[in-house]
Amino acid sequence: MRSAKLERKARWVLPLVVVLATSIQARAQTDPLPSWNDGPTKSAILDFVKATTDPASPKFVPPAERIATFDQDGTLWVSHPMYSQVVYCFERVPEVVKNKPQLAKTEPFKTVLSGDREAIAKLTMKDLEKILAATLTGMSVEDFKAQVGKWLETAKDPRWKRPYTELTYQPMQEVLRYLRDNGFKTYIVTGGGQDFVRVYSEKTYGIPPEQVVGTIGETKFGYDKNGKPLLTKEPKLILNDDKAGKAEGIYMMIGRRPVAAFGNSTGDREMLEYTTAGDGARLAMLVLHDDADREYAYGPAQGLPDTKIGTFPQTLYDEAKKNGWTVISMKKDWKRIFAFDHP
Amino acid sequence: MRSAKLERKARWVLPLVVVLATSIQARAQTDPLPSWNDGPTKSAILDFVKATTDPASPKFVPPAERIATFDQDGTLWVSHPMYSQVVYCFERVPEVVKNKPQLAKTEPFKTVLSGDREAIAKLTMKDLEKILAATLTGMSVEDFKAQVGKWLETAKDPRWKRPYTELTYQPMQEVLRYLRDNGFKTYIVTGGGQDFVRVYSEKTYGIPPEQVVGTIGETKFGYDKNGKPLLTKEPKLILNDDKAGKAEGIYMMIGRRPVAAFGNSTGDREMLEYTTAGDGARLAMLVLHDDADREYAYGPAQGLPDTKIGTFPQTLYDEAKKNGWTVISMKKDWKRIFAFDHP
Repeated sequence: MRSAKLERKARWVLPLVVVLATSIQARAQTDPLPSWNDGPTKSAILDFVKATTDPASPKFVPPAERIATFDQDGTLWVSHPMYSQVVYCFERVPEVVKNKPQLAKTEPFKTVLSGDREAIAKLTMKDLEKILAATLTGMSVEDFKAQVGKWLETAKDPRWKRPYTELTYQPMQEVLRYLRDNGFKTYIVTGGGQDFVRVYSEKTYGIPPEQVVGTIGETKFGYDKNGKPLLTKEPKLILNDDKAGKAEGIYMMIGRRPVAAFGNSTGDREMLEYTTAGDGARLAMLVLHDDADREYAYGPAQGLPDTKIGTFPQTLYDEAKKNGWTVISMKKDWKRIFAFDHP
Repeated sequence: MRSAKLERKARWVLPLVVVLATSIQARAQTDPLPSWNDGPTKSAILDFVKATTDPASPKFVPPAERIATFDQDGTLWVSHPMYSQVVYCFERVPEVVKNKPQLAKTEPFKTVLSGDREAIAKLTMKDLEKILAATLTGMSVEDFKAQVGKWLETAKDPRWKRPYTELTYQPMQEVLRYLRDNGFKTYIVTGGGQDFVRVYSEKTYGIPPEQVVGTIGETKFGYDKNGKPLLTKEPKLILNDDKAGKAEGIYMMIGRRPVAAFGNSTGDREMLEYTTAGDGARLAMLVLHDDADREYAYGPAQGLPDTKIGTFPQTLYDEAKKNGWTVISMKKDWKRIFAFDHP
């Protein structure tokens, strides 16, 4: 490159460099986790990131191996009183029946349409499976994506009267961003439907579809009447991404052992065990829902009320303490729960 | 930031900018595909990348959606006279028998150990499945990785007398790099074993394990005798990543439709159909092995000899021509085949 040309280039590049340098400095001076109260929990995150990203640290982890996995329900967003995806399935039933009117007279659809809460609460697991199959399978993957996208735009959580995608935990959003800013690849590893979560993961968490691992149903390749290729969702389970299935799903979908993993229930136990069984620095965290005022309180660890959704038993609490996993107290560690809260 | 400090920062940043700018300019002036002969095939690649990465182009594709998928056997590396993974399985048999001596008297292992080529050639598909199960499953995922890694270090292709990982096609390596330099995420989508290919994909193709989609066997989570978590490879198929399974596997593992896809046989037909069924710019390419001197010649498209490994029938050739897919002639389009060739 000729010298005069070089100088011209340098002239317009310099201001950019200045802006960049200023912004880097500004960021370094800012708390990356402003919604976390100071204390050992917050320090565990900050110390882990410092140790794994400092090339001089004995615990340094090369960027390619910086894999962090996050459970979704109860870890990244609210999962009480019911998983949002199950709410979706129930609210989808009227539309399904509109297209297949014969279902209106068939159980369990008849009960769901009746709106009789007592009867609905008594539905069996087999009934639930029928509702899931009818609302999550039998359509093209594009149609499913459109159906979920439309629902997310209008559906609202009854307690906060807000879209479900606004009910993500602000402190965890900060952890996601902080890890990514430090070269980590963040994954969702959820018992929820992989296709369901992929619809909003990018917009809601900044996590692209290829970094969502979830419960997987089969799709079948075929052609529509115009000969155009088509993938149809089938009612056949490929992976139940829960408990042992989370470790198996991580191996299948990512092929690397995570160095950091976040969960909140027995469904996440094996993921945390698998993560921390690797050598070197590891971060394992469990969210304990001990804040009935600002969110919900359930365990039954630490004398909290028992629950069927996101169970956190005392045995898991004890395993965490024994293994050096960090239990996050929503009540004590989080300055605010949601982005719309004012701390 | 104070002005004096700012200037100090600018002083050391400037030389870096100059180096960067020079290197960008140098790269722009260099042919990104030096192992390709000039002509319509090479132009198809260059034109596609230009159209999809120029923000002013009506065919511009946002970086997040720049997904390119590559078959491996016969597309990225040699797959004749036999798939390298099958060679691995056969060469692994003595080691397996050493650990389970009773197998030495059992078919098909007895025949494999005999070295009787005529008898080996007569083994049935069921025999082959037994050999695959014995050599690819029953061990921890870490042991499997170590076994394959060790084999790759010493095994050699009988024709070129070189490690299998050196038998990758240099022109395709250039396409991989060129696409990545332009913001594409490159994936392998192979009928071969996902775990097998992940052992060497990063080193051989610059493709990390999480971007390898292959035929998937189940793994089972458990604990070793010391209570340490363990994943064991099981002889149960989760995904046969071939033909329709390639489109299904892409949807499951990536969750996005590729904008570019590369293959060489009927196993890749549905992947190319699925890729090109999307809107906007698409690139679909098929490698035709028509170069017996420098590699192999097989089809049976265009009057080439028939084969059972990587069949490219005339119907696929005709579909390619009809759909505007590009057929790559190894003989005419590739200046050299391997990195060790001198063009």
